[in-house]
Amino acid sequence: MPHPPLMSLNVATVRKQWNLREAIEGCARHGVPAIAPWRDKLEECGVEEAKRMISDHGLKVSSLCRGGMFPASDTVGRQAALDDNRRAVDDAATIGAACLVLVVGGLPKGSKDLKDARQQVQDGIATLLEHARAVGVPLAIEPLHPMYAADRACVNTLSQALDICDSLGDGVGVIVDVYHVWWDPDLETQIKRAGNQRILGFHVCDWLVPTTDLLLDRGMMGDGIIDLPAIRSWVENTGFTGYTEVEILSARDWWLRDPDEVVKTCLERMHSAT
Amino acid sequence: MPHPPLMSLNVATVRKQWNLREAIEGCARHGVPAIAPWRDKLEECGVEEAKRMISDHGLKVSSLCRGGMFPASDTVGRQAALDDNRRAVDDAATIGAACLVLVVGGLPKGSKDLKDARQQVQDGIATLLEHARAVGVPLAIEPLHPMYAADRACVNTLSQALDICDSLGDGVGVIVDVYHVWWDPDLETQIKRAGNQRILGFHVCDWLVPTTDLLLDRGMMGDGIIDLPAIRSWVENTGFTGYTEVEILSARDWWLRDPDEVVKTCLERMHSAT
Repeated sequence: MPHPPLMSLNVATVRKQWNLREAIEGCARHGVPAIAPWRDKLEECGVEEAKRMISDHGLKVSSLCRGGMFPASDTVGRQAALDDNRRAVDDAATIGAACLVLVVGGLPKGSKDLKDARQQVQDGIATLLEHARAVGVPLAIEPLHPMYAADRACVNTLSQALDICDSLGDGVGVIVDVYHVWWDPDLETQIKRAGNQRILGFHVCDWLVPTTDLLLDRGMMGDGIIDLPAIRSWVENTGFTGYTEVEILSARDWWLRDPDEVVKTCLERMHSAT
Repeated sequence: MPHPPLMSLNVATVRKQWNLREAIEGCARHGVPAIAPWRDKLEECGVEEAKRMISDHGLKVSSLCRGGMFPASDTVGRQAALDDNRRAVDDAATIGAACLVLVVGGLPKGSKDLKDARQQVQDGIATLLEHARAVGVPLAIEPLHPMYAADRACVNTLSQALDICDSLGDGVGVIVDVYHVWWDPDLETQIKRAGNQRILGFHVCDWLVPTTDLLLDRGMMGDGIIDLPAIRSWVENTGFTGYTEVEILSARDWWLRDPDEVVKTCLERMHSAT
């Protein structure tokens, strides 16, 4: 690799240990140049205060997590989701996030109609996009692993996400999160198809064998079986020069550790395993 | 639907409660016309005895579970897998199984090279196919859900499996197991592509929300979010008239129940939810 990747800390990686202020100070202390807050952490301290703290420490914001969750059983639910997404776009603009990550949502309660849910997602993004373009916040569709298709995101491959991008035009792109897409036989092709214009973020962690929980058992880079250097090279070959955002949801391991050790380990693994 | 599906009992559904003899007798008692044994259950009683018991009760064998697990770190490991697969083919022939299910295997220990594992799978099936054709046992590639790509099967979509079939010719097809493929946006298209010639089996259960275990938390048909009638109609539209094989791995629920209740429930759900 020509250079070690520039790390961004997704705050979920230390969500049990640190509030947003502590995470910002931690990034500054360890020389991590960028951060990606979640909205619950923003709300704890207030968006304006978050903006000030991030700016005071000279950090960039690689993304805001997250908008999305578009499908609902009725128009009231869909409108509530849209209203919340507009607030998320505004928050992303306020803190200067490079994009708003969209975890698009799964099946509405009681529904088995995946095709309809996928259409609701496309319609929801189309509607949100007007506001997002107006305030200059790119929307980043994150395809989630197929094991989340029912309850978190019915967009499950990069190909699906890029089809949505193609149909909606400017202002919308994708997140390539290795945890969700590493298994896809079409991954290299779809990363090429996305290109530098559509790739709004590159997220890393690792897939552990065995994985003991569907949601909260992600591994530290290098501890699992994902060929991170290969995927990184495909992403960088598009011309991508953004941050490599570390997002590790790990209830049984990394959330139990000293957060300074977690950040130091992330930085080391940026060099040795990513 | 023009008719209720004809059920086959995959013995894994009652694996904690019944040995093979009990499962065969249970099928006969409840009017289930077909069965699908696993090899460990065959070995417990011996293949010839299994053949006799199945024949005595007038059951058909919709599949034998399972061959596969082709990738290995070295030639010794690959040869051992092939030898074991030849024995599985012979066992399938002995009991008159309609096909041998292949769970193809994941990454060899220590490897992160998914492309190589997939090539090993293709090469392994190609080699095994000579013997399988000679004894008249169709090989049925079962694409497994992407959450098993690392440790169980690196063939994760129907599209991948059909590409392998296309490259190898006669004597190899696919299993459509709803648990593994329900999320795939390309599913209807790929079922059409497979057609009646390539679809060697149709397996059902359901995807629970939430799913609490990656391996052993499958649901009874109708208890989850899979649109079983839709997928069944796509399969039957190809001309498929085979058995609908029920395979429910359920450590927290169905494996704890009276096995007669389990079989009765499966039969009811064939009508009401499949």
